[in-house]
Amino acid sequence: MQSLFFEKELCLRDIPLPVPAPDEVLVKIKYSAICNTDLEIIKGYMGFKGVPGHEFVGEVVSQGNILSGKTVVGEINCSCGNCYLCRSGRRTHCMNRTVVGIAGRQGVFADFIALPAKNLHIVPDSVPVQMAVFTEPLAAAVEIFEQLHVKPSGNMMIFGAGKLGMLVSMVARLQGFDYTTVDTVPEKVRFALSAGINAVELRELDPASKAEVCVDCTGSSRGFELALSHLWPRGTMVLKTTVANTSSPDLNSIVINEFNILGSRCGLFKPALNLLERKLIDPSILVSGIYPFSEIISAFEAANNPENHKILIRHH
Amino acid sequence: MQSLFFEKELCLRDIPLPVPAPDEVLVKIKYSAICNTDLEIIKGYMGFKGVPGHEFVGEVVSQGNILSGKTVVGEINCSCGNCYLCRSGRRTHCMNRTVVGIAGRQGVFADFIALPAKNLHIVPDSVPVQMAVFTEPLAAAVEIFEQLHVKPSGNMMIFGAGKLGMLVSMVARLQGFDYTTVDTVPEKVRFALSAGINAVELRELDPASKAEVCVDCTGSSRGFELALSHLWPRGTMVLKTTVANTSSPDLNSIVINEFNILGSRCGLFKPALNLLERKLIDPSILVSGIYPFSEIISAFEAANNPENHKILIRHH
Repeated sequence: MQSLFFEKELCLRDIPLPVPAPDEVLVKIKYSAICNTDLEIIKGYMGFKGVPGHEFVGEVVSQGNILSGKTVVGEINCSCGNCYLCRSGRRTHCMNRTVVGIAGRQGVFADFIALPAKNLHIVPDSVPVQMAVFTEPLAAAVEIFEQLHVKPSGNMMIFGAGKLGMLVSMVARLQGFDYTTVDTVPEKVRFALSAGINAVELRELDPASKAEVCVDCTGSSRGFELALSHLWPRGTMVLKTTVANTSSPDLNSIVINEFNILGSRCGLFKPALNLLERKLIDPSILVSGIYPFSEIISAFEAANNPENHKILIRHH
Repeated sequence: MQSLFFEKELCLRDIPLPVPAPDEVLVKIKYSAICNTDLEIIKGYMGFKGVPGHEFVGEVVSQGNILSGKTVVGEINCSCGNCYLCRSGRRTHCMNRTVVGIAGRQGVFADFIALPAKNLHIVPDSVPVQMAVFTEPLAAAVEIFEQLHVKPSGNMMIFGAGKLGMLVSMVARLQGFDYTTVDTVPEKVRFALSAGINAVELRELDPASKAEVCVDCTGSSRGFELALSHLWPRGTMVLKTTVANTSSPDLNSIVINEFNILGSRCGLFKPALNLLERKLIDPSILVSGIYPFSEIISAFEAANNPENHKILIRHH
């Protein structure tokens, strides 16, 4: 089958069709999408070698399964179910986990993928496939509210109006609390405003303004320090950014202000699918381009352009 | 009155008796104690100039107050009561606060201090003054449990068996969960073991051992990274250390493991006094020396000796 392979550089490569394990099914990829993590991976993040990609919607082609023929999306962490972390409700942190297209497991930039059936969720008929492909990053946005009780009387500042910052803003907007989304790039702010997001340029933000919750979606090592400067004492700073280079936050300031710094990664698919099915969130406005699989290397170039939001790949 | 004054260096200096504001009373200091923050202040921390010191027990000498003649301890943050942080229950973070001996307010290394009556707590008769002087640092240890729900089924690792690490360990020991206190110095570990604390030398600690809660009381910028390496995913790291030099934690690891980093500072006096009155904690074992006020500069030298725990000053 066709695949996009990463080994020092990206290339199209013919690889064998995956053979599903007993608990797995074969999924034919319909659409995939390029995430910032993919862009970091091809810079060397995680030391990954193989087929990258983890955002997808596809069809189960294995026969004899309750999911056969269904359109599905899939959680990306494949867990053992037996270790201390799985048994204590942290299966996305399983000590023996593989992660689709990120760690120890083939990704979705290919014709097919084998995945544990328990990782798959049926896409409701009313959700178009080009929206369903956003389930994984939308779940990562919803994860903030799984981890943290943001009170309606609170407020939130979201730093970064890129792909993830926009999804976090779209979810935040559904709540009663005040929120502001901040970006340095005027075009990003204009786009966010046009999507109904309460966005502002950093240079127009009052440096003294503070929030109970700040979310760092900047994808930049400078974002942490910036977001921290806008956090109330005892407030929570949600860290969403994984970048190859790291910064040096001021630990004294964390102690003196009793800040809470909360790392946040993958989320649950069910609430994300609920939001899509209820048409409360339309992530398809974030699509900046759709490329056929044969042009996936050009798609990566487009995804690297900071003016673009989401780049989708049409597989079949 | 006599005072210890810091301005580039420490010296004994005669200063005017403080004049209490309408909401304040005059307190005659009986005992004070030297905290690591005092040692940092004379290295330049907070840019403080004046009389340092914030741990004390004293007698209210103002007349006509409900507290007159009482033996008291005092919370160190003096708050306005009107700002957003005061009104939202965060008066220790008051935007207009002064802090006894740390920021904008005279400290306790003097014959007398004026303090808001609302900051004072009467010491129960059954609590000796040499124990009561530990109320402030004990409250800082209890603050961890005010901020964080540590489940009986959880576990905790405490890094650093110094003054604060020992108080945190003594409070942790009262709970049902497993805990281990870790230090690099054999003498510190032996002392902790003799005090009934489950302590271990770092070189004997299994590098793979993990806890749901790690507390950094090392007072060292290396402590953060060490403690983080022993934290389970989704675990909480409590930061107690304020040091002049800071370190560079790996932000990626915080995101990937969804770690929670929680800064922790001053605590409430009531639960600390309860523990002292119930004789569940005897911090007087931590006293390494008692100096008369006239020898307070020698007392600071003793406090700088890492072999010592707490150095007390006898004022009157």
